[in-house]
Amino acid sequence: MKVDGKNKKSIWINENNKVYIIDQTKLPFIYSEIELKSLNDTIKAINNMQIRGAPLIGVTAAFGVYLSMIDDPKNKNIENTKKRLIDTRPTAINLRWAVEKMSDSLMKVSEELRADYALKYAKKIAQDDIEINKNIGNYGFKLISEIYSQTKKQVNILTHCNAGWLATVDWGTATSPIYKAHQESIPIHIFIDETRPRNQGSSLTSWELKNEGVNYTVVADNTGGHLMQRGMVDLVITGSDRTTFQGHVCNKIGTYLKALAAHENKVPFYVALPLSTIDWKTNNINEIEIEERDEDEVNYISGLGNSGNIESIRLTPFGTKCKNYAFDITPNKFITGLITEKGVCKASENEIKNLRDK
Amino acid sequence: MKVDGKNKKSIWINENNKVYIIDQTKLPFIYSEIELKSLNDTIKAINNMQIRGAPLIGVTAAFGVYLSMIDDPKNKNIENTKKRLIDTRPTAINLRWAVEKMSDSLMKVSEELRADYALKYAKKIAQDDIEINKNIGNYGFKLISEIYSQTKKQVNILTHCNAGWLATVDWGTATSPIYKAHQESIPIHIFIDETRPRNQGSSLTSWELKNEGVNYTVVADNTGGHLMQRGMVDLVITGSDRTTFQGHVCNKIGTYLKALAAHENKVPFYVALPLSTIDWKTNNINEIEIEERDEDEVNYISGLGNSGNIESIRLTPFGTKCKNYAFDITPNKFITGLITEKGVCKASENEIKNLRDK
Repeated sequence: MKVDGKNKKSIWINENNKVYIIDQTKLPFIYSEIELKSLNDTIKAINNMQIRGAPLIGVTAAFGVYLSMIDDPKNKNIENTKKRLIDTRPTAINLRWAVEKMSDSLMKVSEELRADYALKYAKKIAQDDIEINKNIGNYGFKLISEIYSQTKKQVNILTHCNAGWLATVDWGTATSPIYKAHQESIPIHIFIDETRPRNQGSSLTSWELKNEGVNYTVVADNTGGHLMQRGMVDLVITGSDRTTFQGHVCNKIGTYLKALAAHENKVPFYVALPLSTIDWKTNNINEIEIEERDEDEVNYISGLGNSGNIESIRLTPFGTKCKNYAFDITPNKFITGLITEKGVCKASENEIKNLRDK
Repeated sequence: MKVDGKNKKSIWINENNKVYIIDQTKLPFIYSEIELKSLNDTIKAINNMQIRGAPLIGVTAAFGVYLSMIDDPKNKNIENTKKRLIDTRPTAINLRWAVEKMSDSLMKVSEELRADYALKYAKKIAQDDIEINKNIGNYGFKLISEIYSQTKKQVNILTHCNAGWLATVDWGTATSPIYKAHQESIPIHIFIDETRPRNQGSSLTSWELKNEGVNYTVVADNTGGHLMQRGMVDLVITGSDRTTFQGHVCNKIGTYLKALAAHENKVPFYVALPLSTIDWKTNNINEIEIEERDEDEVNYISGLGNSGNIESIRLTPFGTKCKNYAFDITPNKFITGLITEKGVCKASENEIKNLRDK
């Protein structure tokens, strides 16, 4: 998608097979590109959230495997690389998916070919991600255009966090239907939850939509219930970090609260996701490990200071203890449907399995 | 309640009948007291939220009437004062209650006695507020102690925003049962929603509880649903800016989302309020005017900078539009009960009227 009118992706390989990312911790104020030179760089970028978003974490990890194979293509290092990457973010399921897929294949390739093979494989995962999200956009677009053809009025969509192109390679998951609708000239307006504590809504989704020229309004996370109660939202679309095969959605903390409000106010609540984020094993949602991040993400906040630099300020009294759960789980009964690259389905085991086997 | 071990109130009159407040916009980092010298000062303090919280707004407005009567005790100025004060915060119902009570009485007093009369009246409203909140604490305490006597474990209470002593003259509404339970040595732990956009939870409630030595944890507003889903909350207590006679609660934006999550997860959800915040007229909750505040409260945030000063930083891309609704409405069906100075009742017209007439 666009940055100042130029087409960009969130991760790319240059002509010398060097890996680059956008440093998302400095957005929306400073646009800067970073080279990932090693597995260590990759792990640091994931841990510091210079890149984030379930699909992009998966793709970046794939390139991390490539960088690691350049350094050391031995079996032992494949195992070690896999473990270190998976440990970075315990909740994201397609991080595990991407890394396991690559490491399993690499074991069958001779050592001297592993770096090249890993590069091709990572490129393919990245290219597939783009196609998947384009397809999510095409299917989700139909939901938006149906609402528009019924109301003939601007369609108001609420989204939580950043499930945009910055969370994938391009297009995004939740934003892909939005970009498609915008390109098709359907009048849309997006309410963006700011999404504390890391503000990926107010800093990233807003920046994306501004660059694409999509009409948007940022609101505090507290606001969505009121908007839905007063009829200001036609549709909610969020992303997902992990969806169980029964259709329960683990996504950025706060998603559950919006789903409850949507259900109460009969607002359709859709989740856009690649099928690679489906967890085919977990039966009981209480078994999903919810990542707890550093409490200082709540005690402090960063933004643009008067000096023109990114600054961090303290919000709570010194000595304050915080709990910083990164995700919550929305039970399937609150989800109208899932938007995937293979079509839209109900958040139920039957429909998800049918779609997988399509 | 205590500030650095010394007893303080949020508003007081000194021995020369001067009116003082704590500047709440600088908390939790800088404690500073300000004199209100005139009606203009009072209106400025309300508008800038140097004082806030429905009960304290009412009390401060009463002292504003007193200051205005010193300057000009004529009938015309009573009318003008009343209008200007009520216009500051359209949603807060006991601002209107306090100002109308005073102005109606003042019209019956001769001009030369009006300043003295207004001072006495405002002092009485302030003293009544303390007694009311003590009683709220006594009734709410029973709810906490009942939970404790059943579980014999630490009672975990979630609260939203600041319905603490800083929102009243002393004790607070939602916090009064908490302080009472703490004094009675019941083991309690409070989850505090940070309460964007103005962060009255992370900056004010946390500061109050820290000063009182109550065990607390700050969480992002997005977190409460997850906490309740995983059984980490025994009880929710919030305040109220306006409660309709049918028991619908208008309170800080985001309260509704927590009530939905409490209902879904069978967590008792109580609202603590003085009966003066009851709106005896409004039948249809959609008629309640929801105050919209400046969008820069969402675009920017303040806190303690590296320099040691209160600094404001920008969170959103320049040119971003925000919607900043200050309150939302929780329908009575999601409220387990109301804690008032006359006892606890269901959020229903019958029970509220019975309590009023007790």
